[in-house]
Amino acid sequence: MAQNGKTAQPGPSPTADRAALLDRLAEIADTVERRLAERLSAADIPDRLAAAMRHGTLGGGKRFRPFLVIECARLSGGGAVPPDGAVEAAAAIEALHCYSLIHDDLPAMDDDDLRRGQPTVHRAFDDATAILAGDALLTLAFEILSDPATHPDPAARICLVGILARAGGPAGMVGGQMLDLAAEHAAPNEETVRRIQSMKTGALITAACAMGAVLGGAADADRARLSRFGDVIGLAFQLADDLLDVDAAAEDVGKRTGKDADRGKATLVALHGAAWARSCLADLVAEAEGLLAPFGPAAEMLREAARFVADRRS
Amino acid sequence: MAQNGKTAQPGPSPTADRAALLDRLAEIADTVERRLAERLSAADIPDRLAAAMRHGTLGGGKRFRPFLVIECARLSGGGAVPPDGAVEAAAAIEALHCYSLIHDDLPAMDDDDLRRGQPTVHRAFDDATAILAGDALLTLAFEILSDPATHPDPAARICLVGILARAGGPAGMVGGQMLDLAAEHAAPNEETVRRIQSMKTGALITAACAMGAVLGGAADADRARLSRFGDVIGLAFQLADDLLDVDAAAEDVGKRTGKDADRGKATLVALHGAAWARSCLADLVAEAEGLLAPFGPAAEMLREAARFVADRRS
Repeated sequence: MAQNGKTAQPGPSPTADRAALLDRLAEIADTVERRLAERLSAADIPDRLAAAMRHGTLGGGKRFRPFLVIECARLSGGGAVPPDGAVEAAAAIEALHCYSLIHDDLPAMDDDDLRRGQPTVHRAFDDATAILAGDALLTLAFEILSDPATHPDPAARICLVGILARAGGPAGMVGGQMLDLAAEHAAPNEETVRRIQSMKTGALITAACAMGAVLGGAADADRARLSRFGDVIGLAFQLADDLLDVDAAAEDVGKRTGKDADRGKATLVALHGAAWARSCLADLVAEAEGLLAPFGPAAEMLREAARFVADRRS
Repeated sequence: MAQNGKTAQPGPSPTADRAALLDRLAEIADTVERRLAERLSAADIPDRLAAAMRHGTLGGGKRFRPFLVIECARLSGGGAVPPDGAVEAAAAIEALHCYSLIHDDLPAMDDDDLRRGQPTVHRAFDDATAILAGDALLTLAFEILSDPATHPDPAARICLVGILARAGGPAGMVGGQMLDLAAEHAAPNEETVRRIQSMKTGALITAACAMGAVLGGAADADRARLSRFGDVIGLAFQLADDLLDVDAAAEDVGKRTGKDADRGKATLVALHGAAWARSCLADLVAEAEGLLAPFGPAAEMLREAARFVADRRS
């Protein structure tokens, strides 16, 4: 069911696989959002800080990284319902993702006024509050992972901490953002563009898959396979994002678009063109499907996710 | 040897206890600085980010939190040389402390140009780089704690993660900074001032002591006692800091002083006066000494540290 060309030509009415994926995404988004809302209603968080953290995390987003954590945990556990702790770990990685958006949107960084169709945190509050809300969400992510509710085995929890910290740290997401800012003042070559994307976007998507594998108790080979799947869809995610930036109108995606081109920022789409990017996306989807083949039918949800990443319109 | 009134009247030539403490502080500062420098020379960190992280962490600071981690580990281990992992944990808490200074110094926050007599990170680099260097140091702290080099037992490592994340997060240090910013626009009462100080400064000092207790394998009762010791010297540390802000000239402490009064910021010294604060400091030192009494002579270094916190001049 993975070879019918859905990637290249998404129809106006979703297939059954796509409908099931969208249902699952919505279900996971709802579950993770409720878990985050509970964490952010703790009485010992100062009111204004909690409000800014909620503004930056609740009420939107596809929750794609939580989806990957939970579905990779499910797949690693033989397709069974994933452990409840997977929701905690999913909330942790989403908290970290949301912190990065809040800081990236700051005037000193990308200077964005809108995120998911709403004012960014520094516009709704102020710069200082946005910096602190980001710091607090980043720290909260590790507090959640340290909680026995995430996994009863301390060895599994500390493994999750290590995966998330490496992916989010100076050699991962934050390093990628640093290179990305520097690239605005230069004309980066393809190698640099790929390094930036791998660090800034890819590392956390790969981490989501690896964390799911740990939560599901995957053997080393399966964990490596799911991490590689994360690498591949991370690349696809970024390529699709670059295409969106070129193609879409602002009202479709709820944030300013065309901004990469406005700034002369190099992307693979800018370097090689949209047709090349679409062909490359199809190759990546095929590779992702190949990586999931050993898991059999239980991996259908993740296969459809790879196709969705490649042909999404928002 | 703890009842000779050294707190109230520090002499011009240090006592033997003070000299031993200063030696130990210098030795630990040097050890932790080298460990941080190694971590920050990793080849996979982008150059500019690594340079900003080094600027914000190396070349200064008393390293008081690392001292507490290592000395509490030593004391919990019966006075023996602390495990090498204590240096890793000390580097982690110092990385987190330095991130907080970098972010606090930003124009959107306290807007400081100098730190330890040097330009702050955003002055030496730029605001975006300072934000990212802080984010990277915060994340690195948890990466270090997840490393088996910190402690061979995963249960101990995840315990350290939990302690540090709670102390640094929205109900701890970051929450305290949020309340502190809000207090600039109001006239906080004593309860609010105490809450701010407990969260903003006290939580991390308490965490340092608790982390040391975990590293040294302390029993629950000793861990609670050392945490309470951390609470007490955290209070003393903040009171002494407020006194310094009033008393000292800028060249003595390497940063702008008198700024609390400039901003009309409430401190306990402003509310009750310097004489009250000095009397309160003496009480806190006595309480700290009482908490350490059951540990006997092995705790002399920490006793002297409590006196040092109270009478320090920078």
